[in-house]
Amino acid sequence: MAVQTVATSSESTVDLGPAAALSCRECGHRVPLGPVFACEECFGPLEIAYDFSAYDTEELRRRIEAGPANIWRYAPLLPVPADVAGKPNLNPGWTKLVKADNLARELGVTGGLYVKDDSGNPTHSFKDRVVAQALEAARAFGFTTLSCSSTGNLAGAVGAAAARAGFRSCVFIPHDLEQGKVVMAAVYGGELVGIQGNYDDVNRFCSELIGDPAGEGWGFVNVNLRPYYAEGSKTLAYEIAEQLGWRLPDQLVVPIASGSQLTKIDKGLQELIRLGLVEDRPYKIFGAQAEGCSPVSTAFKAGHDVVRPQKPNTIAKSLAIGNPADGPYVLDIARRTGGAVEDVTDEQIVDAIKLLARTEGIFAETAGGVTVGVTRKLLEAGLLDPAKTTVVLNTGDGLKTLDAVAGTGLTATIRPTLDSFREAGLA
Amino acid sequence: MAVQTVATSSESTVDLGPAAALSCRECGHRVPLGPVFACEECFGPLEIAYDFSAYDTEELRRRIEAGPANIWRYAPLLPVPADVAGKPNLNPGWTKLVKADNLARELGVTGGLYVKDDSGNPTHSFKDRVVAQALEAARAFGFTTLSCSSTGNLAGAVGAAAARAGFRSCVFIPHDLEQGKVVMAAVYGGELVGIQGNYDDVNRFCSELIGDPAGEGWGFVNVNLRPYYAEGSKTLAYEIAEQLGWRLPDQLVVPIASGSQLTKIDKGLQELIRLGLVEDRPYKIFGAQAEGCSPVSTAFKAGHDVVRPQKPNTIAKSLAIGNPADGPYVLDIARRTGGAVEDVTDEQIVDAIKLLARTEGIFAETAGGVTVGVTRKLLEAGLLDPAKTTVVLNTGDGLKTLDAVAGTGLTATIRPTLDSFREAGLA
Repeated sequence: MAVQTVATSSESTVDLGPAAALSCRECGHRVPLGPVFACEECFGPLEIAYDFSAYDTEELRRRIEAGPANIWRYAPLLPVPADVAGKPNLNPGWTKLVKADNLARELGVTGGLYVKDDSGNPTHSFKDRVVAQALEAARAFGFTTLSCSSTGNLAGAVGAAAARAGFRSCVFIPHDLEQGKVVMAAVYGGELVGIQGNYDDVNRFCSELIGDPAGEGWGFVNVNLRPYYAEGSKTLAYEIAEQLGWRLPDQLVVPIASGSQLTKIDKGLQELIRLGLVEDRPYKIFGAQAEGCSPVSTAFKAGHDVVRPQKPNTIAKSLAIGNPADGPYVLDIARRTGGAVEDVTDEQIVDAIKLLARTEGIFAETAGGVTVGVTRKLLEAGLLDPAKTTVVLNTGDGLKTLDAVAGTGLTATIRPTLDSFREAGLA
Repeated sequence: MAVQTVATSSESTVDLGPAAALSCRECGHRVPLGPVFACEECFGPLEIAYDFSAYDTEELRRRIEAGPANIWRYAPLLPVPADVAGKPNLNPGWTKLVKADNLARELGVTGGLYVKDDSGNPTHSFKDRVVAQALEAARAFGFTTLSCSSTGNLAGAVGAAAARAGFRSCVFIPHDLEQGKVVMAAVYGGELVGIQGNYDDVNRFCSELIGDPAGEGWGFVNVNLRPYYAEGSKTLAYEIAEQLGWRLPDQLVVPIASGSQLTKIDKGLQELIRLGLVEDRPYKIFGAQAEGCSPVSTAFKAGHDVVRPQKPNTIAKSLAIGNPADGPYVLDIARRTGGAVEDVTDEQIVDAIKLLARTEGIFAETAGGVTVGVTRKLLEAGLLDPAKTTVVLNTGDGLKTLDAVAGTGLTATIRPTLDSFREAGLA
């Protein structure tokens, strides 16, 4: 793919704050900041290398705490210009860290259980965090069209962010997607293109487009802007630590789709330690998958270092990536921190969605059912310590996956009379 | 209804912060704080009377600014105990005030246009604000069941709040409500009772239940807890002023269902002036209705002081109250402040939803389409001044009224090839 080695003249002068270069996760080869995502030496994934050397810990902490109630409070730690908060952007993040005492009681957790509820983002999923980063990179590189392939949350997040920022958007989806999902993506008024084929065909087409002159000026948030995009997940780590009073949790339960989010949360926590913003103490990261798409969980349990692809079949569509790019890194982090990777059935996912709603009033997407369900399973297996501070991620909103709980309904039907009310045993 | 004159022994000792008594909006008769909503003298609506006399302006401002990022930062101005922020509650509010520069350009507003986006609340509508107040009153009065009649947003808000707070909930809805709405309310696990009848039958039944021993210990958020519930809307006024830098906007566009929200926003702004938290300068409040349920708009235009009930027929279901209790007060406020009340057709509502999504990336409920549509209409009519600072309320989330924009869809369908992409004119 030609674009990977293109170096435009703007690269060296681009202002993305503390981002210094792109660095290969595999071989460490460095290249200037640009819209590239794979190493020209070894084809490994590129990620952002920062220069944080000028920061004084206490001054940085004060600067963050005085910042806006969104991800831009962490601008000094992200690949964005210092004045990012003033640019048109959806300003996601700083979502609630809910102390889930009722859920803790049900699960027997005594050390403090928290739900990081990312359904509070502008388009109600954590995708707003990563898209916001990709958008700023797109702006810096002079792109005018924001694009992605998607079957769900990402389409809406890209459409909405592009609308606010004054970008053109062009989102590619399988042509036969459910009407509800189409509406959620189409309402922002960008181009929404149905591809005659399945999701793999959509992705293949997008890769072709990136290498073609027709794709010039296009930022594909999770392809040629992926190194920037992925960094958005670090903000989950920052917020959790700050909301706990600048303290690391003992245990985190994080969903796995591509695995990127989990690896970036680990990266974010490590940065906080290195910067002195939190005390350096051990934490364990646990990965959560649906049984119907559990390549990383399967590899973890088998003791493998590589992940064998699966064909997804689960209601947790937002996690249904059968060949997760960051799977090996996830395995490494789970093992290094003393965590684990576990999976739950679709039935357990639905039960967990209802459990979270019933105990905490949080209506989670299927991905939230996965993390809560896995938390329960890990507690039962003794892998999660109930006496430790535990943070569970809910990355999306139940309103987007209503079908999963479609069986939920009326608890009684009565005539509009007190007699009927009493007969139903409701008094 | 017996409950209106019941005075329990706990009333005089109940701690609801600065709330001093209930006062009749019509005749001024005062009664102790309790679960009553209509004046025993004249049957006028009761509202909260406060004692703010001890507050020093600058100390109060500092206290608010140091408070949590939710409505409880305004606890000193609400009928809640001082330690409310530590109680289990959904903690709604402090939603984004979005500077809507793209929308402003489209509408020709030069004085600053803002959207107060209450879709960011925990269950994605402003109802979380009012239910949170009702819940604290219920707690203070020793109630154990939280209840309401609803056909939409309120059901979910009550179910979720009760779940978090450890209350039983019992919500009454017409038995033939759409399945999607039933699911959104049922997922929180409380009692969800279908009443064989229409919404009027549901309401009549609830009134009966309040007067019956079977309803003992039940707090109906918008009936016997209505004086407390309604105060939640004041927080919209507080937040808007604080987010503008402790400044009153020149013009506000507010949706009208019962009219309560609009009257309480006015009350909140007046309090801020009296407390010295903002400069006393004129503001205009504009009310927004759907043409298919426009009793207040009709009365305003006809120059009437009373509101003639209508039979609602509009896609803006959350505003479809044909006989709005606070209609006369709304007329009074619109006239006193130099505002107006206007309505838009269902088609204009849909257009406005799309306009807001396309320009700002905000996907509003039909009620948001009503306010944006009315804003456009009032600008065209010269009733809104484009050179003034204007705040438009979006009180709900488009994900809950997907049907309204169901016609939105793919902009193109192509084969997964670059040729097909070019043929479709997308390059």
